[in-house]
Amino acid sequence: MNSIITLTSDFGLYDGYVASVKGVILGINPEARLVDICHTIEPQNINRAAFVLGTTVRYFPPDTIHLVVVDPGVGTKRPAIIAKTPFGIFVTPDNGSLSYVLQPYLAKPLSFKDSVSTTKGFKQELDLEVVKITNPRFWGENVSPTFHGRDIFAPVAAVLSKGQNIRDFGEPATTIEMLALSHPYRNSEDSLIGNIIHIDGFGNLVTNILSCDIHLNKNSLKIKVGSERISGLSHTYAEGCGLLAYIGSNDYLEIALKGGDAGSVLNAKIGDEISLTV
Amino acid sequence: MNSIITLTSDFGLYDGYVASVKGVILGINPEARLVDICHTIEPQNINRAAFVLGTTVRYFPPDTIHLVVVDPGVGTKRPAIIAKTPFGIFVTPDNGSLSYVLQPYLAKPLSFKDSVSTTKGFKQELDLEVVKITNPRFWGENVSPTFHGRDIFAPVAAVLSKGQNIRDFGEPATTIEMLALSHPYRNSEDSLIGNIIHIDGFGNLVTNILSCDIHLNKNSLKIKVGSERISGLSHTYAEGCGLLAYIGSNDYLEIALKGGDAGSVLNAKIGDEISLTV
Amino acid sequence: MNSIITLTSDFGLYDGYVASVKGVILGINPEARLVDICHTIEPQNINRAAFVLGTTVRYFPPDTIHLVVVDPGVGTKRPAIIAKTPFGIFVTPDNGSLSYVLQPYLAKPLSFKDSVSTTKGFKQELDLEVVKITNPRFWGENVSPTFHGRDIFAPVAAVLSKGQNIRDFGEPATTIEMLALSHPYRNSEDSLIGNIIHIDGFGNLVTNILSCDIHLNKNSLKIKVGSERISGLSHTYAEGCGLLAYIGSNDYLEIALKGGDAGSVLNAKIGDEISLTV
Repeated sequence: MNSIITLTSDFGLYDGYVASVKGVILGINPEARLVDICHTIEPQNINRAAFVLGTTVRYFPPDTIHLVVVDPGVGTKRPAIIAKTPFGIFVTPDNGSLSYVLQPYLAKPLSFKDSVSTTKGFKQELDLEVVKITNPRFWGENVSPTFHGRDIFAPVAAVLSKGQNIRDFGEPATTIEMLALSHPYRNSEDSLIGNIIHIDGFGNLVTNILSCDIHLNKNSLKIKVGSERISGLSHTYAEGCGLLAYIGSNDYLEIALKGGDAGSVLNAKIGDEISLTV
Repeated sequence: MNSIITLTSDFGLYDGYVASVKGVILGINPEARLVDICHTIEPQNINRAAFVLGTTVRYFPPDTIHLVVVDPGVGTKRPAIIAKTPFGIFVTPDNGSLSYVLQPYLAKPLSFKDSVSTTKGFKQELDLEVVKITNPRFWGENVSPTFHGRDIFAPVAAVLSKGQNIRDFGEPATTIEMLALSHPYRNSEDSLIGNIIHIDGFGNLVTNILSCDIHLNKNSLKIKVGSERISGLSHTYAEGCGLLAYIGSNDYLEIALKGGDAGSVLNAKIGDEISLTV
Repeated sequence: MNSIITLTSDFGLYDGYVASVKGVILGINPEARLVDICHTIEPQNINRAAFVLGTTVRYFPPDTIHLVVVDPGVGTKRPAIIAKTPFGIFVTPDNGSLSYVLQPYLAKPLSFKDSVSTTKGFKQELDLEVVKITNPRFWGENVSPTFHGRDIFAPVAAVLSKGQNIRDFGEPATTIEMLALSHPYRNSEDSLIGNIIHIDGFGNLVTNILSCDIHLNKNSLKIKVGSERISGLSHTYAEGCGLLAYIGSNDYLEIALKGGDAGSVLNAKIGDEISLTV
C-alpha cells in the first residue's frame, strides 16, 4: 500500500540512524512514501518535537502515519503507543509528543505533565483511539534496548501502513501522557501576558498567544518583549522596519526582526514573557 | 501522475516548514515524487538560490516541476509565477530566482536587477512561457500572508503536477525579474578578471569565468586570488598540492585547496576578484 | 523498476550536488526510490562513510543499490566498482568504503590498508561479486573529472536499478580495497583494550569492542575511558547517572553521558583507548 509515513526524531543528520529506520520500513512495505518532518530536534527535547508536530501534521492527509521517536526512556517501561486521531496516526513513545496536536481538545488545561484519560480527558468531539504497543509479533527480531525507533517503532509503522488493524498491536490504552503547555493569561482588562514557546530557524519568536486569544483592540496594540516595544501588528515581513509583531502562519502571535534574527538580537529564550497592552 | 517536484527554499532543517509544504503537495497528488534540492539557503538569499538552481536543474528531466521559495516579499504585491522553460517548470516568486537558469539566453546582459520582457528579452531559441499565479482557485483555503510556500506555491505545484494547464493559473506574464549577474571581462589582451560567485560546502571557490571565457593559453595560465598565485590548471583534486585551479563540474573556473577549505584559508568572500594572466 | 537506491556522500547539505545526482538517477529510472543514508560525512573521510554503511545497510533489503561517493581520488586512475554482496549492491570508488560491511568476512585481519583478493581474501561463506566500472556505455555524456558521483556513479546505479547485469558495466575485479580496521586485544587474562571508532551525533562513544569480544565477567566489569571509570554495564540510557557503558544498538560497546554529550565532556577523539578489566 502506497501510504505516507513521516519521520520525526532527535537522531540528527550525522549518523545512519534515520536511514536504518527507513530501511526497516521499506523492507516491510516497499511502497511506503517516506517524508522527513524533522530530525534536528535537540536530544530528548520532547517539547520541541511536540511543537513541530502540532504545527505540521495538519497539512498531511489524515491517514498519514507519523513515526515520532524522541525517546529518553527507551528500553524502560515507558509505554509505546499507536494513537489514531483525526489528524493522523501516530506511532510514538507515550511521553507527551502529541501534546500540541491534542491540546486544543483537552477537557481541561493541565498544570503539570500528566497522564490523561483517553476517553474522559478530551472533549467529546475528539475521535481518539489509543493502543499500547505490547504485541511483539510485529517487532524486529532482535530488539536493542537503546534503539526502539529501528527495532519496534519502524516495523510497527510499516505493518500498520500495510493495513493491519491497530488493535492487533496491543490492548487499548486508557491514558495518554500530555505535557502541561503554557497558556497566555489576562493580567488586567487591558493586558495579556504570554510566553515564547518556540524560536524558529529564522530566529522568529513564536508565542503561545493565538489570534483568538487577543481580546484587545488589534489596531492600537502595544507589544513588549524584553526591553523592546512594538506598536501594532504587521501583516507581512516586508512592512515597517526593525522588530515586527504579526499573526504567524500557524495562527500564533510572532515577533520577527526585518531582515534579521530576532532571537539572537533580543537574546530571547523559550519561556520568556511577552506582554500585550493597548 | 507520477511527477517529480523538487523543493528549494531558505526554510532550513530546524522546523517543520518544509514538511508542511510536502504534506500539502501529497494531499493533492499522492503520486508526486518529492526531491529536495536545497533548504539551507541563507534567509532571503535569492542569489544563492538562483545559483544552486542554475547548476542543478539541468540534471533533472525537463518536465520536472521546481518549487522555489526564497521569498522576502511574501504577502506583498510581488508577483508569483509559473515559468515553463526547456529546463523545467518553475513555481516561484518573481524575484530573480531563475537568473542563473535563464541568463545564457538573455538578449543582452543586464547591469542591474530588472524586469525583462518574456518575449523580447531573451534570445529567440529560448522557449519560455510565463504565467502570473493570480487565480485563487488552486490555492489553499486559508492563505497566511507569511507562508505562501505552503498555502499558494505548494498547492499550485501539486495541481500542476496532475496535468493542469499552466494558463489556468492566471494570465500570461509579460516580464520576468532577473538579477544582474557579474561577468568576467578582459582587462587587456593578456588578462581576464572575474569574481567569486559561490563558495561551496567544501570551501571551493566558484568563479564567474566559464571555460569558454578563457581566451588565454591554458597551459601557461597564472591565476591570482587574493595574494595567492596559482600556475596552470589542474584536471583533478588529486594533482599537485596546495591551491589548485581547475574547470569545475559546472564548467566554471574554480579554486580549491587540496585536502582543505580554500574559502576559509584565503578568507574569501562572494564578489572577490580573480585574475588570469599568461 | 521500483528499486531502492540509497545515497551516501561527503557532498553536504549546502549545495545542489546531491540533487544533481538524484536528478540524473530519476532521469534514467523514474521509479527509483531514493533514500539518503548520510551526506554529512566530513570531506574525504572514507573511514566514517565505511562505518556508517557498516551499521546501516544491513537494515535495507538485500537487493538495495547503495551509491557511495566519498572520493578523494576522483578523476584519477583509482578504480570504480560495483560490488554485489549479500548485504546490498554497492556502486562506489574502490577506496575502502566497504570495509565495515565486509570486514567480518575477511580471511585474515589486515594490518594496513590493502587490496584484498575478491576470491581468496574472504571467508568462503561470503558471496561476493565485484566488477570494475570501465564500460563508458552507461555513463553520462560529458564526464567531469571532478564529479563522477553525478556523471558516472549516478547513471550506473540508475541503469543497474533497471535490471542491467552487473557484468555489462566492466570486467570482474580481482581485488577490492580494504581499510585496516582496529581490533580490540587482550592485554592480560583480566583485561581487554579497545578503541573509539566513532563518536555519534549525540556524543556517544562507539568502541571497536563487540559484545562477543568481551571474555570478562560482564557483571563485575570496570571500564576506563580517559581518566574516568565506569562500573558495570547498563541496559538503557535511563539507568544510573553520569557516564554509562552499554552494548549499543550495533552490538558495539558504547559510552554515553546520561542526558549529555560524552564526547565533548571527555574531550574524546577517534582512536582513544578504552580498557576493560574485572
